[in-house]
Amino acid sequence: MRKVGIVGIGQVPVAEHWDRSLRDLSTDAVISALHDAGDPIPGALYAGNMLAGELTGQENVATLIADASGLLPIEAIKIEAACAAGGAAIRAAYLAVASGAHDCVVAVGVEKMTDHFNDAVSSALATAADADYEAAHGVSFVALNALLMRRYMHDHGITREDFAPFSVNAHRNAACNPHAMFMNEISVDDYMASPVIADPISILDSAAICDGAAALILCALDNGKAFPQPPVRLAASSCATDTLGLSERQDPLRWQAVADSAGAAYKQAGIGPTDIDAFELHDAFTIVSALTLEACGFAEPGEGVRMATNDAIRREGSVPIATMGGLKGRGHPIGASGVYQAVEAVHQLRGTAGEAQIRGARTVMTQSVGGSGSVAVTHIFQT
Amino acid sequence: MRKVGIVGIGQVPVAEHWDRSLRDLSTDAVISALHDAGDPIPGALYAGNMLAGELTGQENVATLIADASGLLPIEAIKIEAACAAGGAAIRAAYLAVASGAHDCVVAVGVEKMTDHFNDAVSSALATAADADYEAAHGVSFVALNALLMRRYMHDHGITREDFAPFSVNAHRNAACNPHAMFMNEISVDDYMASPVIADPISILDSAAICDGAAALILCALDNGKAFPQPPVRLAASSCATDTLGLSERQDPLRWQAVADSAGAAYKQAGIGPTDIDAFELHDAFTIVSALTLEACGFAEPGEGVRMATNDAIRREGSVPIATMGGLKGRGHPIGASGVYQAVEAVHQLRGTAGEAQIRGARTVMTQSVGGSGSVAVTHIFQT
Repeated sequence: MRKVGIVGIGQVPVAEHWDRSLRDLSTDAVISALHDAGDPIPGALYAGNMLAGELTGQENVATLIADASGLLPIEAIKIEAACAAGGAAIRAAYLAVASGAHDCVVAVGVEKMTDHFNDAVSSALATAADADYEAAHGVSFVALNALLMRRYMHDHGITREDFAPFSVNAHRNAACNPHAMFMNEISVDDYMASPVIADPISILDSAAICDGAAALILCALDNGKAFPQPPVRLAASSCATDTLGLSERQDPLRWQAVADSAGAAYKQAGIGPTDIDAFELHDAFTIVSALTLEACGFAEPGEGVRMATNDAIRREGSVPIATMGGLKGRGHPIGASGVYQAVEAVHQLRGTAGEAQIRGARTVMTQSVGGSGSVAVTHIFQT
Repeated sequence: MRKVGIVGIGQVPVAEHWDRSLRDLSTDAVISALHDAGDPIPGALYAGNMLAGELTGQENVATLIADASGLLPIEAIKIEAACAAGGAAIRAAYLAVASGAHDCVVAVGVEKMTDHFNDAVSSALATAADADYEAAHGVSFVALNALLMRRYMHDHGITREDFAPFSVNAHRNAACNPHAMFMNEISVDDYMASPVIADPISILDSAAICDGAAALILCALDNGKAFPQPPVRLAASSCATDTLGLSERQDPLRWQAVADSAGAAYKQAGIGPTDIDAFELHDAFTIVSALTLEACGFAEPGEGVRMATNDAIRREGSVPIATMGGLKGRGHPIGASGVYQAVEAVHQLRGTAGEAQIRGARTVMTQSVGGSGSVAVTHIFQT
């Protein structure tokens, strides 16, 4: 397999973009990423998107973006793996370059959610769960995660307040990121006072509904080509799955797909958890952060939440997470989130993360999770 | 890039499967393809599907199939390129093996359309068009193709009856295919008497709404591994795009994405149109067959329909198409069609196509088209 690097990044601010379409947002991200890479002519475009069919009445999204970005007759394919669509699009782009099929490709993630009432968005998001055995019974995605959080609290003697530092950390880091949706810091008191939406999950446990688009330019690094920005090497890429339905698992608190995907990525990069300088994990809910830290080898079962309470997850800690706000602070435009994570990883490795910079960052891991941990895509980026 | 071959095929009959779910259909196809390949353990599964989000309330389809087929914790990703989703899933699978990321993978296509009223299906299909500039005005997919057919008839002095042999040929070939939806032969009189649904397109110009699933097992051919069935080599794989909206094209009768995709495939395989022994083209409408034959170098502009009237497209002709019924006769379960085409190509090259067999077939081309020719995926299979 050829060596693959990220040579360009682009993003629009995550926000409620009521005046901008899916076409506008994605095109802005793609064109700015191409510009960052010195305006190469890519051979393919892989678009991570989950909800445009349900919410915008638009499938064939990759063709739309290729067309609107002036990239015809480029290969263009949409990639979907529920909320892991962004990470999966990066993986498709990686394989296209690693295989030798293309020397340079675009990975873009886009989602447009705020043109709709929340119940329509909740229904659309529930399509990531099992339609026959979960969604048919009316369970929403927040509700599935609330079941996990309650079980975790019960099994490990954890209180709601113990989860607060995940949210506080995300908002603190988002405050340094001009592309973040929530640039406001919050306190533990704010967290405790925030309205519960599916007990025990509150507003401040959850990533908000939002719009956004981010893009990467991936190129082969073994053909002697020079780039305007120092390439960041994509050292590992992997994907793994678990049961679609939460009820089918022997232990719902053991996120096996996340563990398998991270394990394969560590193996490919020849490193372990202690080598990770920053970890952009899929903090759609605070409980996901705790379970992910455990599944990826940073904490024992039941100890993931302790990494938040003992500040290990902060910018200065042993495993900084959500370094530019994460899904909670920067925002979680579903199919775009995995690509935002990668854009932020590149900023950290270029040393251009501003006040959010992790000093001496050499290795950053990103992870997109779809469904209730049913599919996970992990990437490791290195200088 | 590593050499890649098809070592297993599986399919369910295309039909109105009112008693079988998307899960049932896809799992049957995957398990029978794995069995045909000697039950290898694949490393990834790529699922071509377009409409499950809109019609079944189910995204995350690839994880569902991996789970239901007993393949966890395999990598699983859904691939969508409108009606070209099946071809695009094969391409994703091809790149995964060609890159060296996996030695053996599954490409599966599935669509479940008949649980819904036709207007819901028509709306869902219209998401392949431009939501802002086409579908918003109420134009359906049949209507877009009717505009093309009318323009073609006007520009080239063609009558409706000239298109009849496309449909007659498809039904004649489908009659030999036990997996086809329509195993009944039809006459030119039947075609002429069939009800018009969007003038000048009649029922017998169009592929019907249906359910189906098909699967392939792709393996690396360069590691000395033996297979129960003689592998069929995937000699070329390509994808190209054109404008999403039909109105944006200089010449709507020139299908540029189809031409570009076929051109790239010919180049990769080192062959030309005259080397093709059978061509499974995207005959969702008879006009698509005519435009495709022209774009792929088999006929001059305006002459594509003559290949039907002079019998060149029949089993004994110079370019047999829809050899096992095509989209019209076998049926067009949207995201599965591209995979059905490949299954049929393998049957032709194994010599197991029964009465539909093309004698001495050595090279078969398949092509999936999404939108109104906005994205095309072409594959060339060889013994």
